[in-house]
Amino acid sequence: RIDGERLWSSLMEMARIGPSPMGGSRRLALSEDDVAGRRLLLAWTDALGCEWRSDQAGNLFIRRPGRDDSLAPIAVGSHLDTQPLGGRFDGVLGVLAGLEVFRTLHDQGITTERPLELIVWTNEEGSRFSPAMGGSGVYSGRLSLETFREAKDRAGISLGEALDDSGFKGSLTRRDLPLGAYLELHIEQGPVLERKGLPLGVVTGVQGLRWYDLEFVGESAHAGPTPMGFRHDPLMAATAFVEAMRETVLADPEGASRLTVGDFQVTEPSRNVIPGKVTLHVDVRHTDEDQLTVLDGQLRAHVAAAAGRESVEAQVKELWHMPVTRFDTTLVNDLSAAARAVGHEPFTMMSGAGHDAVNISYVAPTAMLFIPCRDGISHNEREYAEPEHCTIATQVMCDALLRAAER
Amino acid sequence: RIDGERLWSSLMEMARIGPSPMGGSRRLALSEDDVAGRRLLLAWTDALGCEWRSDQAGNLFIRRPGRDDSLAPIAVGSHLDTQPLGGRFDGVLGVLAGLEVFRTLHDQGITTERPLELIVWTNEEGSRFSPAMGGSGVYSGRLSLETFREAKDRAGISLGEALDDSGFKGSLTRRDLPLGAYLELHIEQGPVLERKGLPLGVVTGVQGLRWYDLEFVGESAHAGPTPMGFRHDPLMAATAFVEAMRETVLADPEGASRLTVGDFQVTEPSRNVIPGKVTLHVDVRHTDEDQLTVLDGQLRAHVAAAAGRESVEAQVKELWHMPVTRFDTTLVNDLSAAARAVGHEPFTMMSGAGHDAVNISYVAPTAMLFIPCRDGISHNEREYAEPEHCTIATQVMCDALLRAAER
Ligand SMILES: NC(=O)NCCC(=O)O
Ligand SMILES: NC(=O)NCCC(=O)O
Repeated sequence: RIDGERLWSSLMEMARIGPSPMGGSRRLALSEDDVAGRRLLLAWTDALGCEWRSDQAGNLFIRRPGRDDSLAPIAVGSHLDTQPLGGRFDGVLGVLAGLEVFRTLHDQGITTERPLELIVWTNEEGSRFSPAMGGSGVYSGRLSLETFREAKDRAGISLGEALDDSGFKGSLTRRDLPLGAYLELHIEQGPVLERKGLPLGVVTGVQGLRWYDLEFVGESAHAGPTPMGFRHDPLMAATAFVEAMRETVLADPEGASRLTVGDFQVTEPSRNVIPGKVTLHVDVRHTDEDQLTVLDGQLRAHVAAAAGRESVEAQVKELWHMPVTRFDTTLVNDLSAAARAVGHEPFTMMSGAGHDAVNISYVAPTAMLFIPCRDGISHNEREYAEPEHCTIATQVMCDALLRAAER
Repeated sequence: RIDGERLWSSLMEMARIGPSPMGGSRRLALSEDDVAGRRLLLAWTDALGCEWRSDQAGNLFIRRPGRDDSLAPIAVGSHLDTQPLGGRFDGVLGVLAGLEVFRTLHDQGITTERPLELIVWTNEEGSRFSPAMGGSGVYSGRLSLETFREAKDRAGISLGEALDDSGFKGSLTRRDLPLGAYLELHIEQGPVLERKGLPLGVVTGVQGLRWYDLEFVGESAHAGPTPMGFRHDPLMAATAFVEAMRETVLADPEGASRLTVGDFQVTEPSRNVIPGKVTLHVDVRHTDEDQLTVLDGQLRAHVAAAAGRESVEAQVKELWHMPVTRFDTTLVNDLSAAARAVGHEPFTMMSGAGHDAVNISYVAPTAMLFIPCRDGISHNEREYAEPEHCTIATQVMCDALLRAAER
């Protein structure tokens, strides 16, 4: 049995490092507070006799030896960095659940066949340095070390510089640190489990995502004397696109298509001037890769039609394509069996957001476990998860880890 | 006969004061360059023996005495201030056409029955200090002197301070400076005359305008894990509003309704976050005041419907209402007769943009004359008007002024 109270008090203690004004956390990747958070974790794992190593991306690998250390370890982990006004659970729960598993095994004097590894991935949030999921990206080979290190924050400091200063830069790579399996516990960051009244969800994969910059370029002109029929209005092309794309997404009979326009910028805006240029940031997602491809085509067609309606030029730039991820069936079954063992019929679901587990799934068997978060809110100081859900999920992680570590 | 070449060379000489990089002008209201432009004009009118006075708003009144100076003068004028990257004609043409009329009368030794007044209104553009049409606003009593003086530029300098430093602050008011009539020549700032191939248009009024700030407030949430049906997306409410209002405006059988969304701002935008708040700047115009009232109601209904569709809150704030202006029939007839006298069947039209003449029309008989500008472009260094059109229009102004001054 894991100790839910000990887990909760660790969560609350970690949250006091880089506290944010409204009771959340602010530990931007590789900032002093992020470093202090890692140091606190290492003090806890040192007390368990665990040693740690780090790779070129500063990812931490904290080892609990097994009976046969020649076997690839079973890993558990997540991230300790947060958004600027972040919560106390996003990432942290996955790491501290792993700590609680280590503590429980330590207390009970259990040694697993395979070694265990508790991992803290560097810069998952992507808030101080872009892109997100960077440390796991480098580890898995899906992001180059150069690109990872070159990213700069607003003050012009590169991730590479911050990493060199952090004391966590290592020289190891995945070759030195192979994984036998990877399990990650995370808050859902959405409303599904809460609305269904479920304490946990077994995550079978992650929906795919495509990020676009759309640019509509027309002709700036005076709002007063320019008749509607003489205009080349890029703003009305942009609104036409959003409405059309929204209808397409809502028409999905499975309700699995998602569209978000996160930004809508007018260049040199003025109250009585028809805009000359408008830029949109668009995020499209689907749980089925073929459907995501269909959405890509529909997006391009809607952009062309909208631009045509307003006689403006348009450009579609795809910035990121994260294909649909399918997690490892054996690990999903381990999590399901462990859930059943604590009395919860497993509910399987796709993750809406990307996680480090997406990158790791390309190089090792991977699966995730979700718990609800209040109102589905994350990336927010109000983010909250019930102690009871944290406890149940950590127990499930513990049991699944033990299963995998004996194989 | 006025002298078209002299007019043109005055326009070009004025344009060299505060030249902008691409051949336009930059004389922000009450800046050193704006003051220098006024000084150049006064040097020219001094040479004609004219005296000048200024009122509390720094508006210049340059007088050409008549046979009976107890009669209210007939005025002509416009403004000399420009946009930051402005053209050489917007405002300037109206002032220098008045100068050319004064010079022609001077050359020919003509004295009119009523005195004439050449007026330069302060801060028409509203670019350095808001609102626009400020000097004429104060003169007409439609803007309080306090509000006018309190406006600050980006450097924190108030219009009042800039005016006090300019040397043009006077103590007079409209009581001391009544007008018998006011005529203003301006470039159209739109495409109508150019497309019709006409050298001038007699302006019978100005379309009404309503300016709004619309605010849509929803709930910010993660783009990935939040299903479409759980969202409160203010951006999609805003796009729904724009599309619905656009359809309403385009459905106007007379094609006289106009809608411009000059800005569309997302608060704290992030690529993978559903926006929490969106603000629109909306400009609605119509040549018929009743129809403008109808549009106001339709705007509010569309906002409510759009907010309802997305389950978000919405707020409509009206910032400015400039009702439809009807100019003086006698003066419109004077301009039409003068146009006919130089061989042009008068084309009557409504102004799409507000002008100082709108304010003056509340306190004196007023009318305007337009000439085409290339591609309908203004508030732009590329702004251009044909010398021939400037000449014809100045001749028409001269003739109309003489008619009015003998009444
Ligand atoms: N968990 C998370 O915020 N990941 C970032 C990538 C995404 O938007 O899904
Ligand atoms: N002429 C001009 O730009 N006036 C400002 C007010 C308006 O937008 O009509």
